[in-house]
Amino acid sequence: MVNRLFMLMVAAGLPLSVVGSLMHWSPVLMFVIYCLTIVALAGYMGRATESLAIVAGPRIGGLLNATFGNAVELIISIFALKAGLVGVVLASLTGSVLGNLLLVAGLSFFVGGLKHKRQEFNIYDARHNSGLLVFAVLVAFVIPEVFAMEMNEQRTFSLSIGISIILIGLYMAALFFRLVTHRGVYQHKTDAVDEHEEPEWSKKTATIVLLLATVAVAYVSENLVHTFEVIGEEFGWSELFIGVIIVAIVGNAAEHASAIVMAYKNKMNIAVEIAVGSTLQIAMFIAPVLVLISLLFPVSMPLVFTLPELVAMGTAVLLMVAISNDGETNWFEGATLLAAYVIMGIGFYLL
Amino acid sequence: MVNRLFMLMVAAGLPLSVVGSLMHWSPVLMFVIYCLTIVALAGYMGRATESLAIVAGPRIGGLLNATFGNAVELIISIFALKAGLVGVVLASLTGSVLGNLLLVAGLSFFVGGLKHKRQEFNIYDARHNSGLLVFAVLVAFVIPEVFAMEMNEQRTFSLSIGISIILIGLYMAALFFRLVTHRGVYQHKTDAVDEHEEPEWSKKTATIVLLLATVAVAYVSENLVHTFEVIGEEFGWSELFIGVIIVAIVGNAAEHASAIVMAYKNKMNIAVEIAVGSTLQIAMFIAPVLVLISLLFPVSMPLVFTLPELVAMGTAVLLMVAISNDGETNWFEGATLLAAYVIMGIGFYLL
Amino acid sequence: MVNRLFMLMVAAGLPLSVVGSLMHWSPVLMFVIYCLTIVALAGYMGRATESLAIVAGPRIGGLLNATFGNAVELIISIFALKAGLVGVVLASLTGSVLGNLLLVAGLSFFVGGLKHKRQEFNIYDARHNSGLLVFAVLVAFVIPEVFAMEMNEQRTFSLSIGISIILIGLYMAALFFRLVTHRGVYQHKTDAVDEHEEPEWSKKTATIVLLLATVAVAYVSENLVHTFEVIGEEFGWSELFIGVIIVAIVGNAAEHASAIVMAYKNKMNIAVEIAVGSTLQIAMFIAPVLVLISLLFPVSMPLVFTLPELVAMGTAVLLMVAISNDGETNWFEGATLLAAYVIMGIGFYLL
Repeated sequence: MVNRLFMLMVAAGLPLSVVGSLMHWSPVLMFVIYCLTIVALAGYMGRATESLAIVAGPRIGGLLNATFGNAVELIISIFALKAGLVGVVLASLTGSVLGNLLLVAGLSFFVGGLKHKRQEFNIYDARHNSGLLVFAVLVAFVIPEVFAMEMNEQRTFSLSIGISIILIGLYMAALFFRLVTHRGVYQHKTDAVDEHEEPEWSKKTATIVLLLATVAVAYVSENLVHTFEVIGEEFGWSELFIGVIIVAIVGNAAEHASAIVMAYKNKMNIAVEIAVGSTLQIAMFIAPVLVLISLLFPVSMPLVFTLPELVAMGTAVLLMVAISNDGETNWFEGATLLAAYVIMGIGFYLL
Repeated sequence: MVNRLFMLMVAAGLPLSVVGSLMHWSPVLMFVIYCLTIVALAGYMGRATESLAIVAGPRIGGLLNATFGNAVELIISIFALKAGLVGVVLASLTGSVLGNLLLVAGLSFFVGGLKHKRQEFNIYDARHNSGLLVFAVLVAFVIPEVFAMEMNEQRTFSLSIGISIILIGLYMAALFFRLVTHRGVYQHKTDAVDEHEEPEWSKKTATIVLLLATVAVAYVSENLVHTFEVIGEEFGWSELFIGVIIVAIVGNAAEHASAIVMAYKNKMNIAVEIAVGSTLQIAMFIAPVLVLISLLFPVSMPLVFTLPELVAMGTAVLLMVAISNDGETNWFEGATLLAAYVIMGIGFYLL
Repeated sequence: MVNRLFMLMVAAGLPLSVVGSLMHWSPVLMFVIYCLTIVALAGYMGRATESLAIVAGPRIGGLLNATFGNAVELIISIFALKAGLVGVVLASLTGSVLGNLLLVAGLSFFVGGLKHKRQEFNIYDARHNSGLLVFAVLVAFVIPEVFAMEMNEQRTFSLSIGISIILIGLYMAALFFRLVTHRGVYQHKTDAVDEHEEPEWSKKTATIVLLLATVAVAYVSENLVHTFEVIGEEFGWSELFIGVIIVAIVGNAAEHASAIVMAYKNKMNIAVEIAVGSTLQIAMFIAPVLVLISLLFPVSMPLVFTLPELVAMGTAVLLMVAISNDGETNWFEGATLLAAYVIMGIGFYLL
């Protein structure tokens, strides 16, 4: 039933997106059309990724999810950097970290917990991820923030570049660790259960659906971005609020959809991998890559967030580490993460 | 023997409190009388709560303890807010958090650990509480602190009100989680041992004793508060020091007494529930309720602590999370918490 | 083979150190000679300590390692305090904490992890140490930093002295806890395996080697310090960078050598004890002792680090706690610690 609804939404939303943007319909109407279309496309991406995940195992599946969710954000951010909107890019990076860590994980834990009393996920992965979250946000993001206070601009850029290279290097090392040297070493016994399942689509069909949906999401997302300015004026939203909250919610719709579906099906390993894995990919790969790419543009982007952005990300990481360290979730842990997201949302709205 | 001493102290202290305040005896003398009377009354409250705890099980018992300990503080704070003493209320909230988290828990772990080599408590509750401590102090208290730096006063109040409503909502959700949807799900096997014990008083007697002692504590506490100004001048204590240290120690005497008794009897589940549960009740319920109540008074209170207050609470939470996460305690962990309390006490004394 | 190389290095390095300093050879040449000699001497210290560790058990062995590593730093720091170089001493304390926590532990985990897929260490010790790391750095170092902002100089010194006494007291209590009241209570089963091994040297020989090597290291270290100023000018290194990075690497060469050897031999209990135990000894014993000793000199040293120093130590502690809490290590966890060290190194270099 949901699948049929999504099919209708895509069948109607994609042509309307094209027609509407050519016909210059009202930005508020287009905003709603774009958002619904992306959510429906994200549904397809979720199903395709799920099929691929069953074929490829939970880890590669989760990696696929994170990659296809963040490809959209990478593309949007590069266009924004090209236009010199450094503040918007940093805000949307912050929003992606908060959105994945608090909103996606929170909704997954909450919705999954409404159906299942206790849900388990691989505790080794949880601890591996905790260490990396602390490394990326509390070391690699905090250090330039504090050190930059006593540095000139040029040294701040040198520090940003150095840290970016180290982040990308450690991200590569983490992939090497999980996929090569320690593949299956920390495998949880519950992971084995997934193998019995039948994928909805074949590997080929799933790949094609995933690619087409990604292209469509990218097209609609780009149009969506151009409605933000008018929407901001219409509803009284600041640029920071749009970057941190709106871009993150719409930009991570794919993760939202598939993580929640996985949680509802009690596949918490994949749900957590999507939420936390996506956070790590943004913090350890997308953010430093954007810092390096920005060197090619007239306005370079240092790895220096505003203090509210950094404090929001830092406290979100501490909360996630405190909550996820036992390898178990329930609806209340989800509610706690969501409550933290709402608090930060109010804060950025009022800022 | 201790019980007989407490009976004498109440029998002498209550009349002396009434007579002394009418006769305007020396404030320093009255300060000593009030304090001793409260400690003795707290002894009664501890015994009554213990009886009720045996009847009602460790969780409800701990809840009762925390409630009756904090009712006193809520009443005092409302009177202080009415008088416009916003700074004193924030200081005493800070003091209650530090007092419960470091002093009450520290003394419980230390005294209990002198008798028992290793003491265990429910590890699921410990992790549940860790998540909430991080949420309440490191998210809900830190965010307004940092965001308020770049906001005008009116938006700071809006943010405070929003966060207060979310805190109260999540506190209610936590009760619903523990008492309804997940009652007994995370029960530890050692909890069952408590059931064999006989309560000292019947449910009815214990309830009456608890109510009478609470009323008496409230009466004496209110008188005590009025001696603070003179005591501060006499001993050279700042308002902040009195709020953070003196109010907290006397105001939490009930928790001190019963938590330590429980720890000595090796009922660590109840001892931890009193200390940490009381902290959570103050941070997630008393503090936001006071923010909302303050809207009725001429001077409103934002949820913005001073930086030393916030840093003290934040580091206390990190220390408690690091120490309690293994579900075990010993005398040295108690000593560590007490040492942190003394360090903060010296800091607030010198500030 | 390594042992023979170290023998040659000591046999050549010690005479060259003496002759070179008398003959006023080029400081850069002397810098290289001093460094290599210390590394070789550290090799002897490592072997002697290992022999003693086998005789005395892993805990006392680790304690010996930490003690002999930090004796050198204590002596150097006292000379520096006498010369009024308060900033250099605080920087080298920071560097020792970072060096032990990130560089020594990181190299141990990494090198040990290249040979062994998963390495375990006593989880009780890890949690005990986590609590103390949070206490020492996040409470005892952070509180004076924040409170001193609103205090005059005299009160800052009073606070520093009070905290120093509490730190030393708790450090003594920790020794009493581990060696007396709870000796063997938290013993891990894997510890027993070590007992079968034969020490390389007898207790007497090992003690003599250890003492002679310590004296030689102290002599060479002191000479080394006097080359720093010229080296700094030659290579463009700031005083802060020399204090935090260079002094720490050379000053902790002994720990480096023996911790890595232990990790390679899969004796992770000793390796972790060296790295984390040494950090704790510096933070809880060496630093407060230096604060108290500085009262005898014209320029007193408060326990107030610069903000970059404090943030670097604080984030290093959070990272170590997040990584070590599961009692397991692998090469990637080592790489993460090393990456954090490099980030901080770049930061201090550019500051």
